Amino acid sequence: MIVNMSAHATEAEINHVIERVKECGYQAHVIRGVERTIIGAVGKSSDGGGHRSELEALRAAPGVEEIIPIAQPFKLVSRQLRHERTVVDVCGVRFGGTGVVIIAGPCSVESREGFFEAARAVKRAGANMLRGGAYKPRTSPYEFQGLGVEALKILSEARGETGLPVVTEIMGTEDVDSVAEHADMLQVGARNMQNFVLLKRLAKTPRPILLKRSPSATVKEWLMAAEYLLAGGNSNVVLCERGIKTFDNELRNTFDLSAVALARELSHLPVIADPSHGTGRRSLIPIMSRAAIGAGADGLMIEVHPCPERALSDGPQSLDLHGFEELMRELREPARELAGAT
Amino acid sequence: MIVNMSAHATEAEINHVIERVKECGYQAHVIRGVERTIIGAVGKSSDGGGHRSELEALRAAPGVEEIIPIAQPFKLVSRQLRHERTVVDVCGVRFGGTGVVIIAGPCSVESREGFFEAARAVKRAGANMLRGGAYKPRTSPYEFQGLGVEALKILSEARGETGLPVVTEIMGTEDVDSVAEHADMLQVGARNMQNFVLLKRLAKTPRPILLKRSPSATVKEWLMAAEYLLAGGNSNVVLCERGIKTFDNELRNTFDLSAVALARELSHLPVIADPSHGTGRRSLIPIMSRAAIGAGADGLMIEVHPCPERALSDGPQSLDLHGFEELMRELREPARELAGAT
Amino acid sequence: MIVNMSAHATEAEINHVIERVKECGYQAHVIRGVERTIIGAVGKSSDGGGHRSELEALRAAPGVEEIIPIAQPFKLVSRQLRHERTVVDVCGVRFGGTGVVIIAGPCSVESREGFFEAARAVKRAGANMLRGGAYKPRTSPYEFQGLGVEALKILSEARGETGLPVVTEIMGTEDVDSVAEHADMLQVGARNMQNFVLLKRLAKTPRPILLKRSPSATVKEWLMAAEYLLAGGNSNVVLCERGIKTFDNELRNTFDLSAVALARELSHLPVIADPSHGTGRRSLIPIMSRAAIGAGADGLMIEVHPCPERALSDGPQSLDLHGFEELMRELREPARELAGAT
Amino acid sequence: MIVNMSAHATEAEINHVIERVKECGYQAHVIRGVERTIIGAVGKSSDGGGHRSELEALRAAPGVEEIIPIAQPFKLVSRQLRHERTVVDVCGVRFGGTGVVIIAGPCSVESREGFFEAARAVKRAGANMLRGGAYKPRTSPYEFQGLGVEALKILSEARGETGLPVVTEIMGTEDVDSVAEHADMLQVGARNMQNFVLLKRLAKTPRPILLKRSPSATVKEWLMAAEYLLAGGNSNVVLCERGIKTFDNELRNTFDLSAVALARELSHLPVIADPSHGTGRRSLIPIMSRAAIGAGADGLMIEVHPCPERALSDGPQSLDLHGFEELMRELREPARELAGAT
Repeated sequence: MIVNMSAHATEAEINHVIERVKECGYQAHVIRGVERTIIGAVGKSSDGGGHRSELEALRAAPGVEEIIPIAQPFKLVSRQLRHERTVVDVCGVRFGGTGVVIIAGPCSVESREGFFEAARAVKRAGANMLRGGAYKPRTSPYEFQGLGVEALKILSEARGETGLPVVTEIMGTEDVDSVAEHADMLQVGARNMQNFVLLKRLAKTPRPILLKRSPSATVKEWLMAAEYLLAGGNSNVVLCERGIKTFDNELRNTFDLSAVALARELSHLPVIADPSHGTGRRSLIPIMSRAAIGAGADGLMIEVHPCPERALSDGPQSLDLHGFEELMRELREPARELAGAT
Repeated sequence: MIVNMSAHATEAEINHVIERVKECGYQAHVIRGVERTIIGAVGKSSDGGGHRSELEALRAAPGVEEIIPIAQPFKLVSRQLRHERTVVDVCGVRFGGTGVVIIAGPCSVESREGFFEAARAVKRAGANMLRGGAYKPRTSPYEFQGLGVEALKILSEARGETGLPVVTEIMGTEDVDSVAEHADMLQVGARNMQNFVLLKRLAKTPRPILLKRSPSATVKEWLMAAEYLLAGGNSNVVLCERGIKTFDNELRNTFDLSAVALARELSHLPVIADPSHGTGRRSLIPIMSRAAIGAGADGLMIEVHPCPERALSDGPQSLDLHGFEELMRELREPARELAGAT
Repeated sequence: MIVNMSAHATEAEINHVIERVKECGYQAHVIRGVERTIIGAVGKSSDGGGHRSELEALRAAPGVEEIIPIAQPFKLVSRQLRHERTVVDVCGVRFGGTGVVIIAGPCSVESREGFFEAARAVKRAGANMLRGGAYKPRTSPYEFQGLGVEALKILSEARGETGLPVVTEIMGTEDVDSVAEHADMLQVGARNMQNFVLLKRLAKTPRPILLKRSPSATVKEWLMAAEYLLAGGNSNVVLCERGIKTFDNELRNTFDLSAVALARELSHLPVIADPSHGTGRRSLIPIMSRAAIGAGADGLMIEVHPCPERALSDGPQSLDLHGFEELMRELREPARELAGAT
Repeated sequence: MIVNMSAHATEAEINHVIERVKECGYQAHVIRGVERTIIGAVGKSSDGGGHRSELEALRAAPGVEEIIPIAQPFKLVSRQLRHERTVVDVCGVRFGGTGVVIIAGPCSVESREGFFEAARAVKRAGANMLRGGAYKPRTSPYEFQGLGVEALKILSEARGETGLPVVTEIMGTEDVDSVAEHADMLQVGARNMQNFVLLKRLAKTPRPILLKRSPSATVKEWLMAAEYLLAGGNSNVVLCERGIKTFDNELRNTFDLSAVALARELSHLPVIADPSHGTGRRSLIPIMSRAAIGAGADGLMIEVHPCPERALSDGPQSLDLHGFEELMRELREPARELAGAT
């Protein structure tokens, strides 16, 4: 941690900061420049907690211009701690291994019949896992909120028939047990990424977690949310990029594939990408799936619906069954080649 | 709702959409332009729900370019429904009335002694309500997470002594009863604005709610979150702007005062502003408090700490006791005048 | 400048950086922490240039994680250099003095008659300066591009009649002489804020400059654009906040009043605000004008048109003549009061 | 164009709008819903100009809530106008054909020797075109501004030796002739994307244009900037995505690959991507190059410098010669495979 003193800081202010740094148990290295003084606090391992916060509070001391953290705020998710990549195994499906995992299915479980139709089709096309929402976070209270427990049972049955493991979203602590009973992997939705009460509870479940990035989270905030899970005891965490909010609203979100690459550089956790939410536009799903794989994604999550125009949610960003089949075929084809040198 | 067909849409595609619009119970008004056809769906009051979602799903139908909503998605919070401003009364403190309400206190309740010192000082300086966090949402699991129930009791006592009503943040459904027992108003923090499970639960509490805007919520999304509360039965809702995330990270947030004005234009609910979080910078709190009042804010929420440089959270954006006194004095002075015409 | 070495940096990499720091003419202060080493470069005044860039390039050296600048990049615009506020005088209208300057007029000069009607009305209502576009930057090549020289002459005449100084936008270096001949102040539009060729040319004109903030510029980038003008010889610069681009597109822009306060804290230059562009919504102009004055703005720039619904540009964010009169009256009324303490 | 009347609009206000729509030469189709009235303006081809602006001004008329454009604002760049993809040929290098074009070289031309070293190396590694800045737009006036004409001559010579065509940035209208004399393709930098004076001038040059997206431009604004070039007579335009500004400042920019895919869907122009600026981080260039190709990019622009840590600009986002060689090798390898179905 470095304390950057203002150019107008007095000697007394500088000395006060030095004292406080020592009180917090650090050594204070003072560098006096031509225009200003900076104070480096050194001496403990970056435990990320306790005294670190005390030091940060010094930004409020007189004469301090800013506090500059030197170490990353995360520990357990960091690739500095653990260099080899983590593989998260969900009933045999391996995230972070050599292949790209495909999760597919409708946004919401709307009916037994419709879900089975989708489940069979995505299995046939080569998907590795099933998705389907039982509890739906919706911007409006008047929109379809999911079938709840009924949907969980349908998911369970579909897993039985297809053999594909199932992931579904968990919205509140009350539902952790029932969802964990029926699903193989629990998804934390984008809007709950910083629902710390939920994260602490999920740290105690034996199920692997799919942690979606909030549309307004920096990569570091996303990793800190994962840190809550690991610090609480659950190290089976897969990250999922699903688009961020920016000034350009032509697409539903801005699909941030650099974040996939950066998260994989900073952390050992597997990272997948969701081009359905990422773009919100069906026509772009195939090409952005390929881009995501190019960016190093360990998997894709894709919305597929038997009849998107009748979907109760996310129809415009869902492939129909035929479209998904075609996508899977395309993803097996070789990429575009470089132009010959002139 | 208007369906904008693509320029290349076929007659069959157009007819299919017209059929679906009718199936959903609307009349279809077709306007055939030189280059494209649009279809207006008319005939029901904008109930905001049910069939509206069905119509929106039509964006996924072949030949459809976009679906354009005509009516606002919110109902109960809308000023179209209720033109006069709502006044929310918290133990005699009136939000949305003629005066500007001042809520002040430390970010977190850290100790009985420190909190009482702050409480007495802000009371003396003229604040109308006390704030103080018992449960703290923190980006890092290693940071101070609040004193919990102990803090709730301190809040209760401080209310007893000062006579000022108390507001504190509620992070999870499990804590609603205990927090409602000790606090006069429950705050939904920015990161929980779209925690729909929590919103639905809070709709059933008799306590008024302070709903902070998420740093990535549009004004409409913020109003839709309030709609969850009103639709669930709690109409004592005060909105609070506290800064949004933008590309400029020089300040902690971008304090969006136009959103205060816009929310008050679109909704009848009271709207207050939090210049501490809004800017993250102590030196800007006084001037941005005045700006917020200029923008029509029904109140201000200001962080005050007896010793900001030792605060366990938000020190750099907290005024000390003297600074708060001075602010209150300044807010009573007249504003800057126009330059004389040349 | 501080060089933060990666936790895995080797001794050789650390030594290489130390060598380079010295080669660049700085002293290297090395702080070896438990986990990593940082190197402070000290010894010269922050001249903002030359060797500073060389040091920054070190971020590309092996083992370097980041380069952390300690000093601000701007010099001449900085309040550290010059603490008292600059007053920019435009034919007797003083920006940065005690009063709030009001600039008003239509977005574009569309006709002699219409402009004179607006000019007389805003003069009567108490405006201090006239605005009107002769060259219009338009997103589409098919939109009205301004009357050019003809408009300049109309501006000149209107100044003669009303006695109000005139400001107009300059889009290219070719037009500097002709615009400077007819106008009293030259405006750099938001989209040209980083048109460095234009800035360098304007640094050589004797006319004062109104420098609008780009909708995507940080406050620092805005100040650096002003630095181009001062460094090139023109110190009569007034800054103008006019809204930034964010994820919320409900309004045309997000009017960033904290930036007004921050720019006035970091720089001695006068700062005004444009609530017409800032919000894009006529109904919010009056209240956001008052908010801007609260935030410390040294002036306001307001679009006024005799018949906004026939304006060739920016009608929806223009007041009509009566609306402007009313605004001026309102701005003279006292602000809202604090609620009485309970 | 659709006029959405406010729910409170009076009959007189509705009739006034109908009259104005007719005055502008359109037919008015009126749809009266339960709560509000909308008016569709139909009857002319979307010429993108003239009367369209007049209609848009109606948003300022009393009783109007919003104006909803139905057609896209661009014409000549639109894929609706011209469905087959445009191929832009720069001395035999074909953008928009079957292969991916690689442009490489240092950010700035800093010396004859250094540039030739880079030029030979990128040629050897398989690049198709050379880049190098002669005029540099820099945030600070104190940073290296480019060697100007001297650099243009070096570029010319390097083309002679390597046989690779050359692209360089053009910052002002004054330099168009001299730059066009020495370079094969003229680059409009991100900060000049809406420098309309420059665009109009470049529309008259016979050279192809590389139009970088502004870091704050929506895809539509970017296409409208290209429309200026095509409308002015130059249809040899290649678009280049180079990262946008968002709330996440961990990387220099957010590399928006969906924009590459979307621009190619909306327009027939070739689109390339610049992972150097897009990420600002050398370690991510290779993987994001592959992602860009996955997203359909017609080419890549990559910064390469013989000694990045001594580069006068953009060192941290430049590959060294060896790194570029390796990248070219990697881009020829097959992509990651799908995981086997369980």
